Amino acid sequence: MTDITSDDQLYLSRAVALSRDHMNEGAGGPFGAVIVRDGQVLGEGWNQVTSANDPTAHAEVVAIRRACEAVGDFALQGATLYTSCEPCPMCLASAYWARISRIVYANTREDAAEIGFDDSLIYDEIPKPVSERIIPMDHVPSLEARAVFDAWVENPNKTAY
Amino acid sequence: MTDITSDDQLYLSRAVALSRDHMNEGAGGPFGAVIVRDGQVLGEGWNQVTSANDPTAHAEVVAIRRACEAVGDFALQGATLYTSCEPCPMCLASAYWARISRIVYANTREDAAEIGFDDSLIYDEIPKPVSERIIPMDHVPSLEARAVFDAWVENPNKTAY
Repeated sequence: MTDITSDDQLYLSRAVALSRDHMNEGAGGPFGAVIVRDGQVLGEGWNQVTSANDPTAHAEVVAIRRACEAVGDFALQGATLYTSCEPCPMCLASAYWARISRIVYANTREDAAEIGFDDSLIYDEIPKPVSERIIPMDHVPSLEARAVFDAWVENPNKTAY
Repeated sequence: MTDITSDDQLYLSRAVALSRDHMNEGAGGPFGAVIVRDGQVLGEGWNQVTSANDPTAHAEVVAIRRACEAVGDFALQGATLYTSCEPCPMCLASAYWARISRIVYANTREDAAEIGFDDSLIYDEIPKPVSERIIPMDHVPSLEARAVFDAWVENPNKTAY
């Protein structure tokens, strides 16, 4: 827990305003997000799942994609993600992949569950052994798949991330 | 664990072939995915993180987005996700949001860790209490954020998902 500044309050309010505005226009669920680095807004997002027919179009994912597009990089070290609700596991993991440095949120996953969003269920599923998940998962080892991984290691021209 | 059919082997091989082909062309990491329902390929994806500057452009997310676009729906009930590697938490959570019915994979998260991908680290992070994560997270409750959730509940015109 770091100190909450007036700038933090400002950007979080912006994320919340986005959540209301785009819910009202029918874009999707009531979620908004803003990504900020060094006092500059790099990207904004809001939920577009139902309007874009894209189950991955959560506010945070959209904001990350837009911020990366804006800066021309697949990583956002030093950036803060402001979001109107605690990220779901998809969005939280995307923040890790994007190398986000801090997350500030308003509503919680329990608040989200209360209004019908499955974040808590998915949080419960992720740590389970593969064999105990609601979605059946079959591991089919493949020599060719393993060989592709070996080829990645041996490729001198790859861009690691 | 369900029985693995020759069709399963075929679609998984296709996912692996995508992983190799698009790694070779420099699209990104060595990952491919195919989504199939009722014997029909709905969408294919491959990792495009570094070429698209999009940290969320993992094979499975790309395949889910394309499959949803193809069918004009934000849910894919009855579909199987074939992927050359066990999904990372972002991709696994996106499969839950997409209502994917089954996942078949070749390489494991441990295989991914061995070649330098952080899936295991993120799997360890997701279940942690918010205060113990590597990315600092600040909960800043907001009456306005809570009011937006209340407005969602009361909105008779919403599309739930």
